[in-house]
Amino acid sequence: MTTKKLGRQTVAFAAPPVIAGYASVVGKKEGEGPLSESFDLINQDDSFGERSWEKAESAMQRLALQTALDKAELAPSGLDVLFAGDLLNQCIASSFAVRGQDVPFLGLYGACSTMAEGLALAAMTLDGGFGDWAAAVASSHFCSAERQYRTPLEYGGQRTPTAQWTVTGAGSVVLGREGNGPRVTHATIGKVVDKGIQDANNMGAAMAPAACDTLAAHFSDTGLRPSDYDLIVTGDLGELGKAIVLDLFRSDGIELGNYDDCGVMIFDLPGQDVHCGGSGCGCSATVLCGYLLGGMKAGRWKRVLFCGTGALLSPTSTLQGESIPGICHAVALSTEKGA
Amino acid sequence: MTTKKLGRQTVAFAAPPVIAGYASVVGKKEGEGPLSESFDLINQDDSFGERSWEKAESAMQRLALQTALDKAELAPSGLDVLFAGDLLNQCIASSFAVRGQDVPFLGLYGACSTMAEGLALAAMTLDGGFGDWAAAVASSHFCSAERQYRTPLEYGGQRTPTAQWTVTGAGSVVLGREGNGPRVTHATIGKVVDKGIQDANNMGAAMAPAACDTLAAHFSDTGLRPSDYDLIVTGDLGELGKAIVLDLFRSDGIELGNYDDCGVMIFDLPGQDVHCGGSGCGCSATVLCGYLLGGMKAGRWKRVLFCGTGALLSPTSTLQGESIPGICHAVALSTEKGA
Repeated sequence: MTTKKLGRQTVAFAAPPVIAGYASVVGKKEGEGPLSESFDLINQDDSFGERSWEKAESAMQRLALQTALDKAELAPSGLDVLFAGDLLNQCIASSFAVRGQDVPFLGLYGACSTMAEGLALAAMTLDGGFGDWAAAVASSHFCSAERQYRTPLEYGGQRTPTAQWTVTGAGSVVLGREGNGPRVTHATIGKVVDKGIQDANNMGAAMAPAACDTLAAHFSDTGLRPSDYDLIVTGDLGELGKAIVLDLFRSDGIELGNYDDCGVMIFDLPGQDVHCGGSGCGCSATVLCGYLLGGMKAGRWKRVLFCGTGALLSPTSTLQGESIPGICHAVALSTEKGA
Repeated sequence: MTTKKLGRQTVAFAAPPVIAGYASVVGKKEGEGPLSESFDLINQDDSFGERSWEKAESAMQRLALQTALDKAELAPSGLDVLFAGDLLNQCIASSFAVRGQDVPFLGLYGACSTMAEGLALAAMTLDGGFGDWAAAVASSHFCSAERQYRTPLEYGGQRTPTAQWTVTGAGSVVLGREGNGPRVTHATIGKVVDKGIQDANNMGAAMAPAACDTLAAHFSDTGLRPSDYDLIVTGDLGELGKAIVLDLFRSDGIELGNYDDCGVMIFDLPGQDVHCGGSGCGCSATVLCGYLLGGMKAGRWKRVLFCGTGALLSPTSTLQGESIPGICHAVALSTEKGA
């Protein structure tokens, strides 16, 4: 057992890396939601001036990374490594976003858990002694996701009540070794959990068991209790998935009073007609890189457990009758220096 | 500058992690090639007993990981983390391969550079003090790749002379902190390089500049020369890409005498009718986890520089007229303890 490893799945950082910069870029609908004030950039034109939705998503990633770097007062050439991912086939939003830039790049695929995965790996890079600056970026776009995963927008398909709305947005964090920002204290790496949900329009139910599995591992590994956090937040389970998490913990005798979900927080439910809430890599990425980190800096919460959740399916696996594997990675953030 | 960081892109491991187990699983055609003897398992039925090519690819990943774990005498529950990736949309070969297993999982997308990316991250995990055992696995399958990237097999499309043949295979390495296997001494993280090649049937030319960029960074960062390695091997540039790498180095006054490419090595050219050679995540993964590591154990080479190369395009980016971004990550392996 190495000193930084707690239990089966959790690492505790010896010198918790500091969030030196963060930024969120969103589209029009997200800008009309309850977290509007927390985003750095709200574009009224979801094309971001590009000729395709895929290129628009790349543009959002570039904007989010550049803004986060500006806040950290760092040039791209100062980054030791960038971890990035998205939902598009072959993750082209990410690779095209940094094409030709002077940035060592490691691509991720964690579905909607990507921001938590990138944040964990960026923190491991710094705490492991492999660099002084690392960044993570993740994105999704409603229009590129709809045509890839569901139906072209022009088709005007009806959505089922359990469906969620892919967030148009990108979030980015820049981690350094010193400073006054919130720190990354722990990361719990999730396993692939599949409880047999086959409905690709009910991702919340598919991902909720993975969220519970990782949360349970985090508390077991660290000896912490849910009440040790001011806020526990999952990525994009939506209203139904959130209710399932609460139910599953309740069945173990635990009332999660300080729990919420980015998919529920980012939109006005049911006012914005997004059914169960937001989803997509951009959902938890923009809520983290706006409302959550902003709230920590403002003193609203000292300790936050950020749990990125992902549904690791594809349209092909669904057509082949497969159920939906889920995953969740948890990253603990604290404004307390000695945490 | 941290102690483990050399120059801009390279990390040097303080306690080089050891390859405790490795395994390769391939299909019939690969088993008929010149590296036949080096593979652990050659299946005459490319379906691997499954009902779809995608499930066959997952089956190969499971077999490769299990065999590598067996060689390392480790249970899956002993792994601190698994890094895995493939070429399928949403990387389903990887996520379905470990569904329900007791293995913390981090998904990657690095196209055909995935094995090098996973190996680098697994080594960083151990050397950073975040665990005692880490694994990497990567795969590709000719049939799942053809229908996703090109045309259905039944169409019988003609291949251009610069085309490569996606390897049906999976490779896996298991890294530990101690033992007598080859060690991972350095990793050089690549940047996304795009020199404007737009022909999706000429990936070798698209990736070669990224390979040269990362090789140059590796030598500049470490102060090593090409002749310090017994063998330098790129992932899957094929015959044309290999020639471009040799040309580009020659134009800088360097003759790479000890250089080869997995895409050229894995098939008999032109005997097996694969045009420019092999490609796919499984190409460099199976050559590494068979011929290369086997050769190091047998004493054929002491120091090998393994350079995974990836083309970060998608069919969508090609249809939108985009050129092909490439990437290359280099991992240095040594059988010398003090390397």
